[in-house]
Amino acid sequence: SHHHQHNHDKHHINQPYWAAINDQIQAHLKKVVTVKDPVSVFEPMHHLVFSSPLDTAPALCVAACDLVGGGGGCGGDQALAAAAALQIIHAAYNTHEYLPLSDRPSLMPKASPGPMGHHAFGPNVELLTGDGMVPFGLELVAKSDDPAQNSSKRILRVIVEITRAIGSLGVVDGQYSELQCSQLDGNGSWHVELINNTCEKKEGGLHACAAACGAILGGGSEEEIERLRMFGLYVGMIRGTLLRYSPEKRSIRVEELRDLALKELEGFDGANVKAISSFIEGNLSHV
Amino acid sequence: SHHHQHNHDKHHINQPYWAAINDQIQAHLKKVVTVKDPVSVFEPMHHLVFSSPLDTAPALCVAACDLVGGGGGCGGDQALAAAAALQIIHAAYNTHEYLPLSDRPSLMPKASPGPMGHHAFGPNVELLTGDGMVPFGLELVAKSDDPAQNSSKRILRVIVEITRAIGSLGVVDGQYSELQCSQLDGNGSWHVELINNTCEKKEGGLHACAAACGAILGGGSEEEIERLRMFGLYVGMIRGTLLRYSPEKRSIRVEELRDLALKELEGFDGANVKAISSFIEGNLSHV
Repeated sequence: SHHHQHNHDKHHINQPYWAAINDQIQAHLKKVVTVKDPVSVFEPMHHLVFSSPLDTAPALCVAACDLVGGGGGCGGDQALAAAAALQIIHAAYNTHEYLPLSDRPSLMPKASPGPMGHHAFGPNVELLTGDGMVPFGLELVAKSDDPAQNSSKRILRVIVEITRAIGSLGVVDGQYSELQCSQLDGNGSWHVELINNTCEKKEGGLHACAAACGAILGGGSEEEIERLRMFGLYVGMIRGTLLRYSPEKRSIRVEELRDLALKELEGFDGANVKAISSFIEGNLSHV
Repeated sequence: SHHHQHNHDKHHINQPYWAAINDQIQAHLKKVVTVKDPVSVFEPMHHLVFSSPLDTAPALCVAACDLVGGGGGCGGDQALAAAAALQIIHAAYNTHEYLPLSDRPSLMPKASPGPMGHHAFGPNVELLTGDGMVPFGLELVAKSDDPAQNSSKRILRVIVEITRAIGSLGVVDGQYSELQCSQLDGNGSWHVELINNTCEKKEGGLHACAAACGAILGGGSEEEIERLRMFGLYVGMIRGTLLRYSPEKRSIRVEELRDLALKELEGFDGANVKAISSFIEGNLSHV
């Protein structure tokens, strides 16, 4: 399709490819997240969805679907719905992470800088709106089922993937680690373990989930799904590492994760691999 | 089955029937909500699930499945999973409703009395745990799919039902109305409208959803599903009305809702109707 502009240098960021995917996701979000009745509910939701920084996991979902050859048909539309859901859920968690609570006065000031207008609606409305956004996102995925395509099993599998990635063993576990981390002084081995668990469960888990969902919806084989899941895990962990480690401490780790990520792409078709592998460089360039 | 003990007086509360259903739901919850690794995540979740007051909507889900004849097989197990999910989500919302936020010092002190040990873990952990419980509940429903039974479409439909009922047009809308209500003085018509919207979207919507999900999973016809949805809506609204109106103001409204609820049960099999219609009297007796 028109946005597959492959570069010959696989380390060059394929900007047009990712920009086109993000445009598609934004267009889908604008279609599904509108200010409708009751306005008191949907206005804050609209604000929070569109003022939250765009996560990179949703684009990976669409790219993974493309990579396994599912970009054109029904799977492509479903990957777009899953990507929109992931962005809405990301915005919900982002909102809850900024809620002012008595026992976490300075939660994650560095990890989520973002240009978000904080507390435009007051903490209570932000709590409720975040609570409403997660089911709203999952409903988008569930409703993307196309009975004519016999896709119900794939959609259910994607819902399990997303609920696991965002739930108690996923993002919430990462948030606990981040919280414990913020309460520790020093740089002991326990501290490093907590940071790494945060990177693995938050950015790592969400990117792994996004890539696996795209591969499932695109009709990828089990091996393709698992390879793309691992690719997502490593690139997400790179992102988390860049957010939480100082430049002098992170370079070796980032190189290791990068090699692991690229290894997972071996065996996929050459041209598309260049497009998706440029995701890593895109993440590196954001720092 | 052994717990269908029908009473001849349809206005008598069928205690053994509802007690047996609630025992089944509790047993299922004990099986799926355990204190496992990471303990820092699952211990608060376990505490919040089992210390929250048992909602009445989950039992209605199982009873509706029974009523349409789906109690024995795969549909019965799935209704139990959906009921457990509804209780976990109820506990999550209950937890979030009690979070101390600067702009709602006295939210709903009467509406949710409950024997819950508040803030055993601090607001931040309660926020995170609640956030993890909603996807955990939805995952239970998604995983209850039995590929051998070709039930994926029903399970997806149930997920859409639940995400809608708990989302921005459902419970969250009701919570907004409740919040606006708590900020108003007096008893004007706007005030009454807000209370009624709270009853309709919170207890009404959750019981409507629970009954519809039970009927869907039990293999009910579209007419049965819609009748049970309306039955659930009315009995849920009775519950909400009892929580929010003073005795002198509510009696006519409760009688009206009761008649509407019983009318929806016309056309179902006689003996089972007595069991499920006793749900209304069960709610009335709690006041």
